[in-house]
Amino acid sequence: MRVVDFLRTVRDGKAVAACDLTEFVQGISKGEIPDYQATAFLMAVFLKGLSDELTVALTLAMRDSGQVVNLANVPGIKVDKHSTGGVGDKISLPLAPLVAACGVPVPMISGRGLGHTGGTLDKLESIPGFRVDLPTDRFKSMVRELGCSLIGQTGDVAPADKKLYALRDVTATVESIPLITASILSKKLAEGIDALVLDVKVGRGAFMKTERDARRLAESLVRVGTGAGLRVRAVLTRMDEPLGRMIGNALEVRESIDILMGKGPADTTELTFALGAEMLQLGGKAVTPTEARQKLQEAVQSGAGATKFEEIIAAQHGDPRVVREPDRLPTAQSQTPVLSPKTGVIKTIDSFALGLAAMRLGAGRSKAEDKIDPAVGIEILHHVGDAVHKGDPLAIIHHNGPANLEDVQSTFAFSSKPVTPGPLVIDKIGA
Amino acid sequence: MRVVDFLRTVRDGKAVAACDLTEFVQGISKGEIPDYQATAFLMAVFLKGLSDELTVALTLAMRDSGQVVNLANVPGIKVDKHSTGGVGDKISLPLAPLVAACGVPVPMISGRGLGHTGGTLDKLESIPGFRVDLPTDRFKSMVRELGCSLIGQTGDVAPADKKLYALRDVTATVESIPLITASILSKKLAEGIDALVLDVKVGRGAFMKTERDARRLAESLVRVGTGAGLRVRAVLTRMDEPLGRMIGNALEVRESIDILMGKGPADTTELTFALGAEMLQLGGKAVTPTEARQKLQEAVQSGAGATKFEEIIAAQHGDPRVVREPDRLPTAQSQTPVLSPKTGVIKTIDSFALGLAAMRLGAGRSKAEDKIDPAVGIEILHHVGDAVHKGDPLAIIHHNGPANLEDVQSTFAFSSKPVTPGPLVIDKIGA
Repeated sequence: MRVVDFLRTVRDGKAVAACDLTEFVQGISKGEIPDYQATAFLMAVFLKGLSDELTVALTLAMRDSGQVVNLANVPGIKVDKHSTGGVGDKISLPLAPLVAACGVPVPMISGRGLGHTGGTLDKLESIPGFRVDLPTDRFKSMVRELGCSLIGQTGDVAPADKKLYALRDVTATVESIPLITASILSKKLAEGIDALVLDVKVGRGAFMKTERDARRLAESLVRVGTGAGLRVRAVLTRMDEPLGRMIGNALEVRESIDILMGKGPADTTELTFALGAEMLQLGGKAVTPTEARQKLQEAVQSGAGATKFEEIIAAQHGDPRVVREPDRLPTAQSQTPVLSPKTGVIKTIDSFALGLAAMRLGAGRSKAEDKIDPAVGIEILHHVGDAVHKGDPLAIIHHNGPANLEDVQSTFAFSSKPVTPGPLVIDKIGA
Repeated sequence: MRVVDFLRTVRDGKAVAACDLTEFVQGISKGEIPDYQATAFLMAVFLKGLSDELTVALTLAMRDSGQVVNLANVPGIKVDKHSTGGVGDKISLPLAPLVAACGVPVPMISGRGLGHTGGTLDKLESIPGFRVDLPTDRFKSMVRELGCSLIGQTGDVAPADKKLYALRDVTATVESIPLITASILSKKLAEGIDALVLDVKVGRGAFMKTERDARRLAESLVRVGTGAGLRVRAVLTRMDEPLGRMIGNALEVRESIDILMGKGPADTTELTFALGAEMLQLGGKAVTPTEARQKLQEAVQSGAGATKFEEIIAAQHGDPRVVREPDRLPTAQSQTPVLSPKTGVIKTIDSFALGLAAMRLGAGRSKAEDKIDPAVGIEILHHVGDAVHKGDPLAIIHHNGPANLEDVQSTFAFSSKPVTPGPLVIDKIGA
């Protein structure tokens, strides 16, 4: 293959050979194809698109650029969940143990937080002693023995994605459906999973601002994931306001434990059940959504989910007592309430701005090297549609340094009329 | 300016600020903006286009990346000619002295040949002693005193164009009207000219294969050139068969001298006059095409054009006697005729293939480092529309090594019916 001929074909929106695309990604990965040809490719794909068949080839080539975990000798259908990211989205934490407790193996490899969104690894690391850097063999044996392991991506997982993502970031080629699809799926496929549930967020606080765009991404993920040999379902969920009660690492672990104990907020509990029901069906442990929800409910009521979380924490060198005694989690020195500036109904909560406010408190990172403070964050006391009086507390800032009340207060907007928030789950995509 | 925001705007086909485009080109030129952002820009422009206003800004920024000759103290309207390149296109050689002899200063900075097309510099260097690497001061004084100088581009002329062209070549972004326009005009503007005549070639042997594409390029060159402060005219000319009788460096100098002496082939003589007439009008030395042609005709008949060529050659350290005694030019050891394989009318001559055949003889380069043999080439004895008998000579190969007769013979195709070639000059564009 001559790279310039390959680029000409992509540029013209015509079909390149899948094997040439594979060779191109391998070349990028090995440093044999220079970055300036990689970015010409990325811009051409951004502007001309890429067929599903070729997006499958791109995905597989990116997956194969690094280590692919082989879970063939773990019995059962291995299922994971991926979310496109939101503020207060801690669903992975209660979901993984709960689904594993229902008999579906969940091999979950996660990333860290950046900007306004948090990361599963950062949240887990707020549990004293918890290690996310287990060797692959330990990850595999945990999935086999406990049905779940929650670890971090190493440089070995889809390094071609890392390289291409860095180039997309500096060439305005991030927001491309085929490139996003391949990026997400290549990393998930490297886990050795059989099935995947995707939580595609829509709204002001999400990467996809409109339902149309989110639906296009969800459909692409389902088609390409299926083409790559996965069983895939996508759930479109609303991300206009923050999810649940807590934003911040240890605070989100607390809420996760509440969900496992059956006393979590309505929205995060519902989302855990909705995504868990899909995972149980894909994993062959339930035929109908009703049956799946019933099993999840039983795993909450029996305490099996919480016990599974304890087992996972213990196996990953963390202190499992946090599940029954959450006060063992890091706690911020100060709790400062943010009061409502007026009487009315909460019309919107700007989750993007709230995510950034939490980041500035120390709960997140503005750049990859930043250190985070596991204890700090924001507790949200009221949601969209709630009627409040002037002076009522809207939120509590958990802080170790100074707290900027205005930063949080300004994310709330008010109405004099009743406000009805949209449904949390908008649609499901995939057979 | 954040480069990624700039790229996003170009990517979306929206208008960036001209000053940001200038800054971007400066950044590329200084190596402050990496190649991988440059190629993302090039692919975005290829696929989304660039407005005339921004193509002007791109052109000027590329011009200003290097040395710009200041000819302000040379009296008169300085006019140059640029051709998009064809096989057997030696028009610059007779044209520049002829137009200069008519009183229009011609500051001509040319390039070398690559692939199937020759280069003006290579042709000039086949004149014993001829130097194309004069210092800028000498170039300026020649234009002032003789009305013409014929030199080569140095690394100092529009280096940003050199860098961007190299990147276009490896990212399939060459064939873009705004990028071609900026590349051509940036180098010509660096000569310090006031006006420019463009010979835009159309046809099988040209860069632009269709009249539609050639017209689009010509119109873009006229609009953008005008926007950059030049007086510009473009002439669309046919390049289906090779131009004139000779392909090869010293051979083309011979034909150029023939044209200056009034005994050149009909097509190259006509093209010299057509382009010269435009240059005289732009240069203010003739009002009508008829008046311009008359002046050019007088310069041929009086010998003023030939004398001007002698003066230029002498000033550039060459042997001026070649003009009256062309046998002083390098001559190949062998002349081998290529015979017609059949009786009929010549339907087509594949000028692209013939250009490559001449290159393989040693008249051209397949890569920039190749050395050329000034003496070798191909002499074409018959043109499209000529009736020939089987065994008639079609061409003569002038060679120093082995000659591949089949290589030349196969470029001729025959018909049993009469064939009428299209007009040489298709159209003129520009006020």
